[in-house]
Amino acid sequence: MWMDTKPEVKGANRRQTNTIQHVLNGLLLFTGDMRHLDKYMQDKLFVLQLAVGALRGVTMVILANNPLSGALILIALYWTSPWMSLLGALGVLASMLTALIIGQDSAEVTAGVHGYNGMLVALLMGALSSAGDWYWWLLVPACLGSATCVFLYSSLSSVLDRWDLPVSVFPFNTVIILYLLCTGPNNPYFPHYPSLPPGTLDPNDTDLVPAEVMRGVVLGVGQIYACEELGPSFLILGAVLLYSPLLLLHALLGSAIGILAGLSMAVRHECLYSGLLGFNGALGCMSIGGLCFIFNWRTHLLAIACAFFSSYVDIALGNLLGTVGLSASSWASTIIITLMLLLTGSLATYRIPSDQVMAPEHNRSFRLSWKSGKVTEVESTDVGCG
Amino acid sequence: MWMDTKPEVKGANRRQTNTIQHVLNGLLLFTGDMRHLDKYMQDKLFVLQLAVGALRGVTMVILANNPLSGALILIALYWTSPWMSLLGALGVLASMLTALIIGQDSAEVTAGVHGYNGMLVALLMGALSSAGDWYWWLLVPACLGSATCVFLYSSLSSVLDRWDLPVSVFPFNTVIILYLLCTGPNNPYFPHYPSLPPGTLDPNDTDLVPAEVMRGVVLGVGQIYACEELGPSFLILGAVLLYSPLLLLHALLGSAIGILAGLSMAVRHECLYSGLLGFNGALGCMSIGGLCFIFNWRTHLLAIACAFFSSYVDIALGNLLGTVGLSASSWASTIIITLMLLLTGSLATYRIPSDQVMAPEHNRSFRLSWKSGKVTEVESTDVGCG
Amino acid sequence: MWMDTKPEVKGANRRQTNTIQHVLNGLLLFTGDMRHLDKYMQDKLFVLQLAVGALRGVTMVILANNPLSGALILIALYWTSPWMSLLGALGVLASMLTALIIGQDSAEVTAGVHGYNGMLVALLMGALSSAGDWYWWLLVPACLGSATCVFLYSSLSSVLDRWDLPVSVFPFNTVIILYLLCTGPNNPYFPHYPSLPPGTLDPNDTDLVPAEVMRGVVLGVGQIYACEELGPSFLILGAVLLYSPLLLLHALLGSAIGILAGLSMAVRHECLYSGLLGFNGALGCMSIGGLCFIFNWRTHLLAIACAFFSSYVDIALGNLLGTVGLSASSWASTIIITLMLLLTGSLATYRIPSDQVMAPEHNRSFRLSWKSGKVTEVESTDVGCG
Repeated sequence: MWMDTKPEVKGANRRQTNTIQHVLNGLLLFTGDMRHLDKYMQDKLFVLQLAVGALRGVTMVILANNPLSGALILIALYWTSPWMSLLGALGVLASMLTALIIGQDSAEVTAGVHGYNGMLVALLMGALSSAGDWYWWLLVPACLGSATCVFLYSSLSSVLDRWDLPVSVFPFNTVIILYLLCTGPNNPYFPHYPSLPPGTLDPNDTDLVPAEVMRGVVLGVGQIYACEELGPSFLILGAVLLYSPLLLLHALLGSAIGILAGLSMAVRHECLYSGLLGFNGALGCMSIGGLCFIFNWRTHLLAIACAFFSSYVDIALGNLLGTVGLSASSWASTIIITLMLLLTGSLATYRIPSDQVMAPEHNRSFRLSWKSGKVTEVESTDVGCG
Repeated sequence: MWMDTKPEVKGANRRQTNTIQHVLNGLLLFTGDMRHLDKYMQDKLFVLQLAVGALRGVTMVILANNPLSGALILIALYWTSPWMSLLGALGVLASMLTALIIGQDSAEVTAGVHGYNGMLVALLMGALSSAGDWYWWLLVPACLGSATCVFLYSSLSSVLDRWDLPVSVFPFNTVIILYLLCTGPNNPYFPHYPSLPPGTLDPNDTDLVPAEVMRGVVLGVGQIYACEELGPSFLILGAVLLYSPLLLLHALLGSAIGILAGLSMAVRHECLYSGLLGFNGALGCMSIGGLCFIFNWRTHLLAIACAFFSSYVDIALGNLLGTVGLSASSWASTIIITLMLLLTGSLATYRIPSDQVMAPEHNRSFRLSWKSGKVTEVESTDVGCG
Repeated sequence: MWMDTKPEVKGANRRQTNTIQHVLNGLLLFTGDMRHLDKYMQDKLFVLQLAVGALRGVTMVILANNPLSGALILIALYWTSPWMSLLGALGVLASMLTALIIGQDSAEVTAGVHGYNGMLVALLMGALSSAGDWYWWLLVPACLGSATCVFLYSSLSSVLDRWDLPVSVFPFNTVIILYLLCTGPNNPYFPHYPSLPPGTLDPNDTDLVPAEVMRGVVLGVGQIYACEELGPSFLILGAVLLYSPLLLLHALLGSAIGILAGLSMAVRHECLYSGLLGFNGALGCMSIGGLCFIFNWRTHLLAIACAFFSSYVDIALGNLLGTVGLSASSWASTIIITLMLLLTGSLATYRIPSDQVMAPEHNRSFRLSWKSGKVTEVESTDVGCG
């Protein structure tokens, strides 16, 4: 029996194990959704709550929900370009303040749900602008566009709620396309680069460079924030890892699938290298793989299929919108994810209700405990309220 | 005490005041929704009921609902061009008769709800036709297009009713765009002018003429009926005034906002002068400012925001549809108004249910009495049916 | 009295009549929906059930539902081109297998509802491909595209079910347009012919040849399967006749209306001769005339109106999508049929619920018996559960 061994050594060992366990548990506190932070913040200043909400909002762009990840992402943006990080932060704040002003549910605002669309609008306006960095006039459409997202979010949620669908980035996609259409290609005040269809044949295309393609896989995740540099993209990947390792795997997998899809359609190599073809696949893959569906091998295959669908639809929309110089932004993944959430049949049983979506790891354990809990419920049916 | 003063003078004064009061009350009978007319018409000839419904339908284009305003608008159209007034009247009648034939609710038909889309289709076909006035063949598509609106109206209402949304001018916008697409730019039977994107740079543009811009504000309201002359536009403004002064203010405000939005996007000056950029703003502003929402300072600000949204979306759609020579007609305001009606949060509490929308002044007093009525209801809960 | 005549002759006559009656009844078993076959197949091998379902799926493209018609249509396709029949069969099977794999209701799969969209996708990919017959690489997108239809079907049904609308060929139309956009006009792997807008003026157009136009009416029905030859088109018409003579009449009527609509818009003569303008009208007319609505003179007129709407919308969409080289496929009829099913008012009372739609002749007799049944129900209200 173990009681026979030297107790003081055991105790020391146990204490050491406890410490490691403790530190690990402490570290784990900073991963996932950090729901405990909400409880801690409840009685803090409203401005602080908003700040945490804003950081959460920053990560919602990449389907995560963790304030520390948000801080990492802001650092990554600052690393790419201080001007872009200013725009991004401004976009989050403008849309959150608008949400407060027009009387949206303040719990929703401090949870950050009104931030990510605004951030994306501001970031993309900056990325597509051909007026260069620090063109201060751009702050006007950036703020107004971010504010508009709140109205769209609120309106669309009335419709989509009927099918328990998230509003996702529909507002961002709508506002950015309207902004680009509104300003047109040769606007004297807000000029922007026209987008080229990915399917255009490029006579300068040489043989494919494998290293560049590998780089494109990583950049594909960075492109979700319109970030086209390797270092910051790795930092963004780190932010995803902090939230959920499973999500990170799906992000890279989806991005790679996007590039595969692009290769099969012979798109311009530039699109592959820059990661522009990867981010819709990444978003599609992340969304289905563990986040909106319980993770198992069937939903994993569905996530792969979703990544392919998103990528092909992105190429299709890119070719269509490119004829009038518009970018397809993330329309493809947004539409495909919405359709996947509407699936009927046996796959629908793995779907997690929109208001219970958390980190994939948590979703999985929650469902398992819920399943065993169901058995308990059935047994204790005379005691419970069921 | 006033009893001491000469009673006969008092009586005379009072009688005079009474007369003025009486006349004013009599005049007030012709303003607003004129609901009392419906009661009076109940046992009259069906043809007369239809005629009143048609006049109501004419005003519904501009979000009013008053047969006298309808007569004024028809006069304004006749003043601009007898051919256009013929087309407009024919459009109203064609769609109302179709509604009767396909068995739509006859109460709805006599209320005029099936008239305004048909009228707009016929008017726009005339305005965009390049075959000149009195091209009799145009009556065929005008009648058929107006009739089609009824089918669309009925179908769309099945869907939109789920969210208590009005069908609004969606049928008109759909039919006119399909007509333009169907006939194409060089049709030998039904030629029409292609539309230019408002964002096209015009090398002939000189400095802005303030007087012309002011004129554009008024014309913006006239353009709702495709009317581009100052006199008739003023008459149309008068028709709005007859229905509701508050609506008139919002119409002019919205039209001015539309021109501001145009200036900020550097559109062609011609669009500003002709009022083409004003009418979406006007419709958006009227709709939210008092009509679909109770009028107060918050909804007034929302109406201004809605006018800006409508105008910018109109420029965006104009630039997009202009690439294939199509006009954006009133898509922008129709979509934006629909989205605004879907808003959630504290703003939604001011919304008036679709079937209770009346003149802004009436809406306001109704809500106030309803609010005080609610208190009474709570007090008398043991007597009432509540 | 007839009892006085020779009984043995009578008996022979009666026996002969009985035999004819018997044979006719036997033949009637092979028409209409052949629901009795389902009962017979219930305990047969699953593969056999799938085969019958696949044949049913083949006919659902043309709104019929009869395995023998399906076999006839496959023969017609083989007659046109063995390559096309291979593609069509592969498309049906790929989508049915996918439906089984992703866990769709297996009763639905064996009923064939997951087959027709996949078949159309594969057929159209073949018909639009400019790589010639037996280009084996085409099987990859054909299979993947067909599989994608199942996902779309499942997702769209979640939304459309709210209004009891059929998913119809929305998945096919979406997938084929995305495929064409994705591959673009000059794809090195999957090249395809660009579509020309029907409204383009053709300087080579000579006078209209009436015989060719008559031919176009028949080809219009064949074009539903992308079949442009007269013999196979007649065979397809035979397949429709086997299912329901009333449907055949509406198919030819609709196709003729499509050509009339084309003439009124002065489209290229080539579109009239090839039947490309007829098939949307045919689908619209068939759908409303007896299939989704009880057949009577009012719905017959509605079917004619629907054929005109479908044809004009097809020309409009063809002109729009043709500017980027896309084909309008059957978007027009699909949208118009959906809108017709949403109609309110007295016409809506003739509508047959989506899950009870059968051959027009059956629908009619069913409704008559249901009507008389209702009377019985009212009488026996104390016995029944009503």
